[in-house]
Amino acid sequence: KPVGKEDTVKLEKTYKPVPKGLSLVIGCATFPVWNSMPGLFGDLITGNTALFKPHPESVLPLALIIAEIQKAAKKHGYNPLIAELAADTQDHLLTKDLAEHDDVHVIDFTGSSQMGEYIESLINRGKTVFTEKAGINSVILDSMDDLKGSMQNLSFAVSLYSGQMCTAPQNFYIPENGIQAGGEHISYEDTVDALKEAISGLASHPKMGHNVLGAVHDEKTLERANNAESIGGRLIRKAEPIAHPDFPNARTCSPAIIEVDAKDRDKYEQELFGPVIVVVKTKSTEESVSIAKELSGRKGAITCAAYTTEDKKMDYIEQEMEEAFVPVTFNLLGPGPVAVNQNESFSDFHVSGGNPAGNASFTDPDFIVRRFRWIGHKRRVEK
Amino acid sequence: KPVGKEDTVKLEKTYKPVPKGLSLVIGCATFPVWNSMPGLFGDLITGNTALFKPHPESVLPLALIIAEIQKAAKKHGYNPLIAELAADTQDHLLTKDLAEHDDVHVIDFTGSSQMGEYIESLINRGKTVFTEKAGINSVILDSMDDLKGSMQNLSFAVSLYSGQMCTAPQNFYIPENGIQAGGEHISYEDTVDALKEAISGLASHPKMGHNVLGAVHDEKTLERANNAESIGGRLIRKAEPIAHPDFPNARTCSPAIIEVDAKDRDKYEQELFGPVIVVVKTKSTEESVSIAKELSGRKGAITCAAYTTEDKKMDYIEQEMEEAFVPVTFNLLGPGPVAVNQNESFSDFHVSGGNPAGNASFTDPDFIVRRFRWIGHKRRVEK
Repeated sequence: KPVGKEDTVKLEKTYKPVPKGLSLVIGCATFPVWNSMPGLFGDLITGNTALFKPHPESVLPLALIIAEIQKAAKKHGYNPLIAELAADTQDHLLTKDLAEHDDVHVIDFTGSSQMGEYIESLINRGKTVFTEKAGINSVILDSMDDLKGSMQNLSFAVSLYSGQMCTAPQNFYIPENGIQAGGEHISYEDTVDALKEAISGLASHPKMGHNVLGAVHDEKTLERANNAESIGGRLIRKAEPIAHPDFPNARTCSPAIIEVDAKDRDKYEQELFGPVIVVVKTKSTEESVSIAKELSGRKGAITCAAYTTEDKKMDYIEQEMEEAFVPVTFNLLGPGPVAVNQNESFSDFHVSGGNPAGNASFTDPDFIVRRFRWIGHKRRVEK
Repeated sequence: KPVGKEDTVKLEKTYKPVPKGLSLVIGCATFPVWNSMPGLFGDLITGNTALFKPHPESVLPLALIIAEIQKAAKKHGYNPLIAELAADTQDHLLTKDLAEHDDVHVIDFTGSSQMGEYIESLINRGKTVFTEKAGINSVILDSMDDLKGSMQNLSFAVSLYSGQMCTAPQNFYIPENGIQAGGEHISYEDTVDALKEAISGLASHPKMGHNVLGAVHDEKTLERANNAESIGGRLIRKAEPIAHPDFPNARTCSPAIIEVDAKDRDKYEQELFGPVIVVVKTKSTEESVSIAKELSGRKGAITCAAYTTEDKKMDYIEQEMEEAFVPVTFNLLGPGPVAVNQNESFSDFHVSGGNPAGNASFTDPDFIVRRFRWIGHKRRVEK
């Protein structure tokens, strides 16, 4: 560095990435592995020691993973305790004790909005927090080439893992004047019927039905689906048990559908986790988009599936929904396996981090760089 | 994307960086430009509209900058209101009204710890917050080649802009058994005397004195320096006005020095903004490092200047201080112009973001990527 007119000072600078310290990863019951690996590996690659607190009902998959990480660490000469399991039981939950502990500096959380908001409140105690909470995902129906193919795809999306994916659609916004499909006008009623038929068709399909639906994790989720009429509105499809040939005692359920008017906002403004979908009758596609956007921004959303054959409307829906930080997937067809709920590991962002569904996004640089800080030391050296 | 055994689905994916929205930059009085430009430009380059709230006593520099930005925007066909000035007065401060406004999504703040903590509390209302607050910077004296040169450099560091830099050293940790300098043992008392002499020498230097010290911004800062004995400990150098030939009415002040014992922690555990330094008499260099580290982690620190001739001790001091996320600068010599307070624009991180002195670091990628989110849309296209 030249200083003054003639003199120079020689400095040797080193830049060290310093990990924030002990990190806590809090897993959920329904996606114990997929949702937690990014945070766990994010911690380990940035030099943080990770403590994994699995959901008390989903311990085994994580126990296996932590054991493998410890084996690999040991084999390569690292302390195997760079990753540890902190399992608890429903009788004696450890989440808050661990999250509030002064030695815990980074927290990754997947789970309910209520618990996620509590975890986010710990930011004010100096903790770095990454959350994925709940949201209300939307489907916007305007126009399509292929009514049956579109409805098959949507029925797959809502049925997959019995709607227990954080990316599963919940609210279907359909204009009261109906939609366009294959060049023809389809009335609102016929559109709803086509959706209902596709869902029933998939559920009763002898091979796909039970395999796509899988089992319901929580008894409460099953109760919600079975009592969908209590949400209000008109029950247009009842949830029913679906026999699984290999698991006769499995807790299973096909999706319930209720129908509400757009003005009855209280009936569709909360997350209905599991196999329950709500058809919302709107005045127009513009109203559909407007409600989906406002609700996503206020309550959170991870996905939006939209069907329109017009490029300009696609642009419009993208622009509106991205203001609520929701990505839009257009015009998927067929009974799987590509549905709006599925994010690709290396080419999709999972959760935008821009609305209440979560404050972070896997694969965004933010998800990594906030786990450590750069410290730049300087030493004067002889010229 | 191949799906199933034979079929493929073709998706067109677009990734849009979506700005978080209206951003607020809150400037401070003493560094209205330097501290606020990174946040302001961070907002603009990520597509956010920026509102600049200058300190009511430092409005002009920002008014000039905002005017230039608006001119440049207009010239290139952008809306000039991408950057606006939101000036207020001491009688009617606007900071909280603006910061709490629902439309404000990103906040950059430079100022006091108390106000900074309030701004950070807004994270729980969904705002993205970058702060630079106060800290207590340390000097660790162990051994050096050149006693006079080292003390000259430190006197420059504490005098520059009358100690009103967030990077200015405050606490000087000196072992009771003295230090090594140029191969000789220097007693604790002689070390303190050398520091005092260097500070007095610079202050009374006919050319450098008034130019290095500059003026004191706030009357309260001057009072603190003039009443340094009220902090406790022993006053070993009184603050004195320094005449400035060009500005006879300037509010000026040379640094006050107080001396305390390491055990009297309450006397040196708060920030003493301005030209006041504290000599802390410790049992050993190890105790010096231990106190500096603990205090930095708990109350925040931006810089640490250390003097030691031993490589192993440099490594040790770096390792300890980086656990409190404080960079260390070693062995600077001479009466400026390279001092511990000066961070280089393109090769230093300013503030680590890892301790209470601030939650962000200029030039860290985190400082940019958190101002927008990535939204990935997908459209099915014909194969």
